[in-house]
Amino acid sequence: MSKSHIHRVTIRFGDCDPAGIVFFPNFLKWMDEASLAFFMAHGVEPWRVLEKTRGIVGTPLLEIQTTFVKSATYGETIEVHTTVEEWNAKTFKHRHVVKRGDDLICEGTELRVFVQRDAENRDRLRSIPIPEDIKALCQ
Amino acid sequence: MSKSHIHRVTIRFGDCDPAGIVFFPNFLKWMDEASLAFFMAHGVEPWRVLEKTRGIVGTPLLEIQTTFVKSATYGETIEVHTTVEEWNAKTFKHRHVVKRGDDLICEGTELRVFVQRDAENRDRLRSIPIPEDIKALCQ
Amino acid sequence: MSKSHIHRVTIRFGDCDPAGIVFFPNFLKWMDEASLAFFMAHGVEPWRVLEKTRGIVGTPLLEIQTTFVKSATYGETIEVHTTVEEWNAKTFKHRHVVKRGDDLICEGTELRVFVQRDAENRDRLRSIPIPEDIKALCQ
Amino acid sequence: MSKSHIHRVTIRFGDCDPAGIVFFPNFLKWMDEASLAFFMAHGVEPWRVLEKTRGIVGTPLLEIQTTFVKSATYGETIEVHTTVEEWNAKTFKHRHVVKRGDDLICEGTELRVFVQRDAENRDRLRSIPIPEDIKALCQ
Repeated sequence: MSKSHIHRVTIRFGDCDPAGIVFFPNFLKWMDEASLAFFMAHGVEPWRVLEKTRGIVGTPLLEIQTTFVKSATYGETIEVHTTVEEWNAKTFKHRHVVKRGDDLICEGTELRVFVQRDAENRDRLRSIPIPEDIKALCQ
Repeated sequence: MSKSHIHRVTIRFGDCDPAGIVFFPNFLKWMDEASLAFFMAHGVEPWRVLEKTRGIVGTPLLEIQTTFVKSATYGETIEVHTTVEEWNAKTFKHRHVVKRGDDLICEGTELRVFVQRDAENRDRLRSIPIPEDIKALCQ
Repeated sequence: MSKSHIHRVTIRFGDCDPAGIVFFPNFLKWMDEASLAFFMAHGVEPWRVLEKTRGIVGTPLLEIQTTFVKSATYGETIEVHTTVEEWNAKTFKHRHVVKRGDDLICEGTELRVFVQRDAENRDRLRSIPIPEDIKALCQ
Repeated sequence: MSKSHIHRVTIRFGDCDPAGIVFFPNFLKWMDEASLAFFMAHGVEPWRVLEKTRGIVGTPLLEIQTTFVKSATYGETIEVHTTVEEWNAKTFKHRHVVKRGDDLICEGTELRVFVQRDAENRDRLRSIPIPEDIKALCQ
């Protein structure tokens, strides 16, 4: 398991669609925010700093899975509860549980890798082993 | 199985993140576009028309699953190939395969329901059996 | 003049573009959020409530003007300082000043109207005189 | 004056807000797309190529001004007609006219600069004189 983190989001008018409810890709955006907020809350520097010091550009996704339970609308505040459910050699799996008070709104997992820019071709991103120091901060 | 549809998207600068690649929730947005484009290409009217004629507001998601294979960036054109993989009594499952030329970029499924506004409480959305006429158009 | 309101935003990775800075339409999104937050902070109910009680759907824009002074990036928190600079018979003008600490990031105005759905054609939105009670709450 | 370019956009469900019309920052996003499309249509390479060959990162905004005339909704196709109205020493001004058939939806200007990364501090973006070769391609 891992430490956890709660990322709070107030839903805005422009986050909602003509049905009056959150346009669902925004939940994925908020889970992505929650992932970076999780790392930064536990002492990891933002990617733009790590890019310069260690070449780490971020943690792109290999796979996501999300289940939607209730809808939500603007003016409401939701909480994204984030943990790391699995640390593997080159990947890690987040679990995000999105709640509005006690109501479960949606939940899902993200399988991610850490990537560096390739030294020879800076357009190429290469996955690297999970950095042990980052893992140690978050466990 | 079902008919299929190809939804073309040209990736824009503002769709990409500081790593220079598509910010992944945009792939979910494009799959959502592809779903409505699939129905409209086969003769189904947009939700804002169906809302007035039949109370059908749209097809919210119950579950998504996506696997990301290659990254993509702005200036590139991708194709979302959409089918309905399963028609169930009250749900249907889309498969979206996103390609750039012959390269697989990502692929995933969406489990969706058709919903109507509740007659007594218009804020409440209720799932309904798959409309047979819509299914017939798309099969 | 009017009361004022401060809307705080933490900038996220996905709000930034390949140049690593905020993709500028997001500043307009945050000013839009700040507008609704301004009204709700002073006791006005959200549009989805006013739509049911008074037919008021929102405050669409007639005109915007924005000047961009400094860029901003993810991990930073900005404040949108919002006032109403002019109340006219059928329009009002917001001023939004966006700051990061003491630094001015951007500032602009929005000319808006209040609209109701037309009773005969619910797709048609009609501008109405500024509601006196709403103006009184915000002045 | 300048050459012109037409950028076509089909409006999507997720581009619209709870009032059922385009969430206005999307018009700014489409004008931004139209700006890059304008340059690429006239033979300028995308910023990610120019960044490597000439250090040019893009054309950030100094000022925008937009007037909104009619609303638009999903399923509709709009055209953004783009020109360069002024070429100055270090800035240029786009005019974007957004139409749906013969209907004017909105129109506006963007004052932009070309920027390079500073050689000593790559986080710093510096404006440069308008590149004569790019201007020549677009005039």
